[in-house]
Amino acid sequence: MAAISKAVITAAGDLQKNIPMQTLVDQNGETKSVLQIILDEVYQAGVADVALVVRPGTQKAYREAAGAAGKQLFFIEQPAQEGYAHAVYCAKDFAKNDSFLHLVDDHLYVSQRGASCAEQLMQAAEAESCSISAVQTTPEHCLHYYGAVGGRRLPQQKNLYQINDIIEKPTPTEAEHRLIVSGLQRGSYLCFFGMHVFSPTVMEQLCHRFERSQDKPPRFLSGILLELSRCEKYLACELAGNRFEIASKYGLFQAQLALALEGKEQNQVLSLLLDQLATHQLQDSR
Amino acid sequence: MAAISKAVITAAGDLQKNIPMQTLVDQNGETKSVLQIILDEVYQAGVADVALVVRPGTQKAYREAAGAAGKQLFFIEQPAQEGYAHAVYCAKDFAKNDSFLHLVDDHLYVSQRGASCAEQLMQAAEAESCSISAVQTTPEHCLHYYGAVGGRRLPQQKNLYQINDIIEKPTPTEAEHRLIVSGLQRGSYLCFFGMHVFSPTVMEQLCHRFERSQDKPPRFLSGILLELSRCEKYLACELAGNRFEIASKYGLFQAQLALALEGKEQNQVLSLLLDQLATHQLQDSR
Repeated sequence: MAAISKAVITAAGDLQKNIPMQTLVDQNGETKSVLQIILDEVYQAGVADVALVVRPGTQKAYREAAGAAGKQLFFIEQPAQEGYAHAVYCAKDFAKNDSFLHLVDDHLYVSQRGASCAEQLMQAAEAESCSISAVQTTPEHCLHYYGAVGGRRLPQQKNLYQINDIIEKPTPTEAEHRLIVSGLQRGSYLCFFGMHVFSPTVMEQLCHRFERSQDKPPRFLSGILLELSRCEKYLACELAGNRFEIASKYGLFQAQLALALEGKEQNQVLSLLLDQLATHQLQDSR
Repeated sequence: MAAISKAVITAAGDLQKNIPMQTLVDQNGETKSVLQIILDEVYQAGVADVALVVRPGTQKAYREAAGAAGKQLFFIEQPAQEGYAHAVYCAKDFAKNDSFLHLVDDHLYVSQRGASCAEQLMQAAEAESCSISAVQTTPEHCLHYYGAVGGRRLPQQKNLYQINDIIEKPTPTEAEHRLIVSGLQRGSYLCFFGMHVFSPTVMEQLCHRFERSQDKPPRFLSGILLELSRCEKYLACELAGNRFEIASKYGLFQAQLALALEGKEQNQVLSLLLDQLATHQLQDSR
């Protein structure tokens, strides 16, 4: 696989939550919008061209939220809200026949030291020359939020798995029957992380489903990726990092804590935190 | 003093930071914009009419951030950025000859149980029938951020002070000479909290300074309030609560933590926090 030079970010459908404008302090201690932090990660991983798939009429808000990087972003409008798979499909003219990195804009990826999550995933994809999805070990009671994969660990590899099954938001029973991965803790499954590297086959399949197939087009990518796993090499990769869903309740708070704990200002933030907890205890016990 | 039925909120000059659109989970566990949380506090304290002083061209963003309350908000445009005192002066036709509650939109006020900060302050103003500014005990090294007051505690009152001096962003030396309040911890001063109840005299003074005086108009309110303290009863009130400057670094994070610690979901958030700290330690020690 040639070096990956393109990324497609799909924006959350719901701009009500103002995801791109939310402000966090990044690992370097700089105050930035969520979108800027995601773009930093992508550009620093070596991607040259980034496309953002957005709803019509929201470009300006996203461009402003992107700050300096806004100028070099490609914007692609998804004319109607036809789902996540369709949002990726909208980037077909941008992706052409190239492999590309794909992320969602309502997740924040925080790596533990060293290489960023995007960098780790791109390195794995280039080394293995195939499509690869980042996954995170996830407890059973969270399965209904995610797409989950079944498979087996590659020999001599700590964090790479051959994918042989995929279910979107599986029930615990479905997961227990089809998605158990040996080596994981009981009741844990590999769920998508919201970050992938896709070979050109993924876009070909999307074009087929949205342009030529008689079947109802898919809302999610899971079906497309299950087909992918049957026709070419497709791996899952556990990264040294965590994803945070910033649109979820307390998601921004948890993402901020993670950035701080993995960043330059760890001590400063821990001290703010302890101060505030102590003051609260003091006031509470008055 | 008649019951206070009006509030004037001045919006931070710098919309770049998108303060009004930042999202937090409030004390009831509901996800809201910062502006909505401030407006909830004001309306729940019994204020009927709220005016928001904003820069030209930013009304739409504020109205959207205000959610359902946006419809009943009065918007007042400050034509040019002539400072904080001028922003308050812009509300003269709204305030008319009434007392009003005044807040800034880049602070979040979190009370410890029971009455909100706005409610506590309005009760004190109505009981004392005078202008009253909320203050917070602040350590010397933070003096350069705030206006600070000197005065003496009223007899038989735990949290009310007669104001006899005011300095905007004093140096430690100025503070030591003019602002020591007996009964406070050494090195602590009473600094403005960003929330006031003003008698009609304040707007009269502002009108005089901006319309008729030959002197350079003031940027801050401190000079106006010092005059106020010389011509009528004017108190400072320590509230059972804290203010958080959400535009400052980690300000949103600290405000979120405070809301959670004083709210319904205290245990849930403490458990999220401890989980995340524990996981981080575990990964760190691998």
